[in-house]
Amino acid sequence: VETISLARGVPAPECLPAEDLAECARAVVERDGEAVLNYGPAGGYGPLREWVAERHGVAAGRVIITNGSLQGFVFLAGALAPRGPILVEAPTYDRPLRLLDGLGAEVFALRVDEGGLEVDLLEVVLRQGLRPAFLYTIPTFQNPTGRTLDAERRRRLVQLAAHYGLLIVEDDPYGLVRFEGPVMPTLFELAGAEQVVYASSFSKTVAPGLRVGYLVLPEALVADVETAAASTYITPSLLPQATLFEYLRLGCLRPNLDRTCRLLRERRDALLAALAGELPEGRWSRPAGGYFLWLELPGGVLVADVVARASSAGVAFVPGTDFFPPGAGGENALRLAYSFASPRELAEGAVRLGAAVRGGTLRRAA
Amino acid sequence: VETISLARGVPAPECLPAEDLAECARAVVERDGEAVLNYGPAGGYGPLREWVAERHGVAAGRVIITNGSLQGFVFLAGALAPRGPILVEAPTYDRPLRLLDGLGAEVFALRVDEGGLEVDLLEVVLRQGLRPAFLYTIPTFQNPTGRTLDAERRRRLVQLAAHYGLLIVEDDPYGLVRFEGPVMPTLFELAGAEQVVYASSFSKTVAPGLRVGYLVLPEALVADVETAAASTYITPSLLPQATLFEYLRLGCLRPNLDRTCRLLRERRDALLAALAGELPEGRWSRPAGGYFLWLELPGGVLVADVVARASSAGVAFVPGTDFFPPGAGGENALRLAYSFASPRELAEGAVRLGAAVRGGTLRRAA
Repeated sequence: VETISLARGVPAPECLPAEDLAECARAVVERDGEAVLNYGPAGGYGPLREWVAERHGVAAGRVIITNGSLQGFVFLAGALAPRGPILVEAPTYDRPLRLLDGLGAEVFALRVDEGGLEVDLLEVVLRQGLRPAFLYTIPTFQNPTGRTLDAERRRRLVQLAAHYGLLIVEDDPYGLVRFEGPVMPTLFELAGAEQVVYASSFSKTVAPGLRVGYLVLPEALVADVETAAASTYITPSLLPQATLFEYLRLGCLRPNLDRTCRLLRERRDALLAALAGELPEGRWSRPAGGYFLWLELPGGVLVADVVARASSAGVAFVPGTDFFPPGAGGENALRLAYSFASPRELAEGAVRLGAAVRGGTLRRAA
Repeated sequence: VETISLARGVPAPECLPAEDLAECARAVVERDGEAVLNYGPAGGYGPLREWVAERHGVAAGRVIITNGSLQGFVFLAGALAPRGPILVEAPTYDRPLRLLDGLGAEVFALRVDEGGLEVDLLEVVLRQGLRPAFLYTIPTFQNPTGRTLDAERRRRLVQLAAHYGLLIVEDDPYGLVRFEGPVMPTLFELAGAEQVVYASSFSKTVAPGLRVGYLVLPEALVADVETAAASTYITPSLLPQATLFEYLRLGCLRPNLDRTCRLLRERRDALLAALAGELPEGRWSRPAGGYFLWLELPGGVLVADVVARASSAGVAFVPGTDFFPPGAGGENALRLAYSFASPRELAEGAVRLGAAVRGGTLRRAA
């Protein structure tokens, strides 16, 4: 049995606009090869910085474009971690958790429920006197839960941030990958550029192999991050940034997003429908966008027990524990990515997962 | 007066094969877009890893391709610095010096003379019992001196490394940028893959804006470096790596090197000739390849005094002190890059530099 992977947050090949990007790469090197092919600014390809800056209403100097947004988090965390403990959501994206651990940072985790980060808990710890270096949050279509911070909590969060001088690092790679429902204002839009570091990426909106992420920074952090970038790689990879800029300049982003969201929504729907049939006793989130859903196993079932059976049954996922600091939770949960597998594979994956959860042998789909 | 920069090691625009790379970028995304545009291995684009591995006679798993070779040094130094003090050449490339300083590493600097690293000094410190984590060396067309470790010293260096169990990090971005004279074996070729980490890049042989550098690693270091890469950026930028692979596959490297070396040799010759006329009292290296020469100021003249006068005269360079640990030397020396300015500008730059050194006012070239 070939394994069906619902593990990694990787887009399906048909989401990648290869033909257009091939032509954009050629065109931009022909037109601007002298800049694209030589050393350049540590903050990234000028025209793309300007495009991002205009979109977010800031000066281009506030935008630092990095080789993927995780690299930006590495620079930021390196600069900020010495200033104090760090607040994260629980569960949250596993790679930043590992990086913070590697930096020896003291990490406090705040629970996420159906409405996103439990802002009440944040208020409690701030009122108790905790002064974190920053709060790391993914408010929209969160990785790993697919949940979105509701409008009321967004307002309260930025009020708290202003009151307590809390710096928010808003990671927003999925915000534009929305299938339905009203667009929410970002924390950056609500709180302004001095209270929020806004991080995003073109990995989910155009193509991850380009490795183009960015930070919109408060003035006070620009020099630190830019110096870290120059000391690490002198200049980021300019060819992908210039190719992407060409793609944006030609107006390809919106139609591509419409196409991608349609493909992803079909996949989400296929997975939700299959789960309802195969795991009626479980509970899972119903994301309105993004790549992931979060599944809580029926009472008493531990994900550690399901992993091995799932592997034999031919389905892969990421155990919930990966998204918490060690020992802090996730033992009865798991993350499913619906971004890569086809609707048919997603349905079959749910069948296999159901069998693995019930501990039984593989029941074949029709 | 527009400043003539002899400061940064940047290739002249005519060295960059923009037209060919534009076409290679298009072709490879069309052919292999599914791999190039998605997440991939942390070690880089498979076909390029294989190309590099074959060139150096190792398995592809030993090659880690990074976003520029400095990024590889960051990973390597992060993994190795905790193991002990680090030996460097003095003078040496300034960015690794800064990075090692940032890591809090204990750094010992060994002098470089006309024949390269003074291997006698290395033997003394090793015999005295120093057990460094590694020696960082640029044996061919060194940055900043342009000097090359001679054949006899190469043999002695690898013997010492074997005898004392010394790990050598051989940084070799300029080795193929040779204008004249016999090709020297690399330390990696002399000592084998377990004693030497070999680092190189396509920045000086194709185009720096691609940001494609690589490490050839001893088996024991592969996992550490690969994990650091995945934790930093998941996957390096694949589009430039794939574009470069296409360029190599089509056999463009050798003709481009011939062309680039011709352009650079003209520039070196123009600078050497002009210096002989303008600064007869100074001493400088006569590099047989690479981007840089090292100039020792006439007796008593300090580079700190020359910098301000040179700036007024309209010529820029990097002071020698930047290439030493703080206080360890370079006060009467400077680095000149002949890679970017045209032969005519190089000649004029030498005139201005001569005036600045003599402390006089600007004497205009004919």
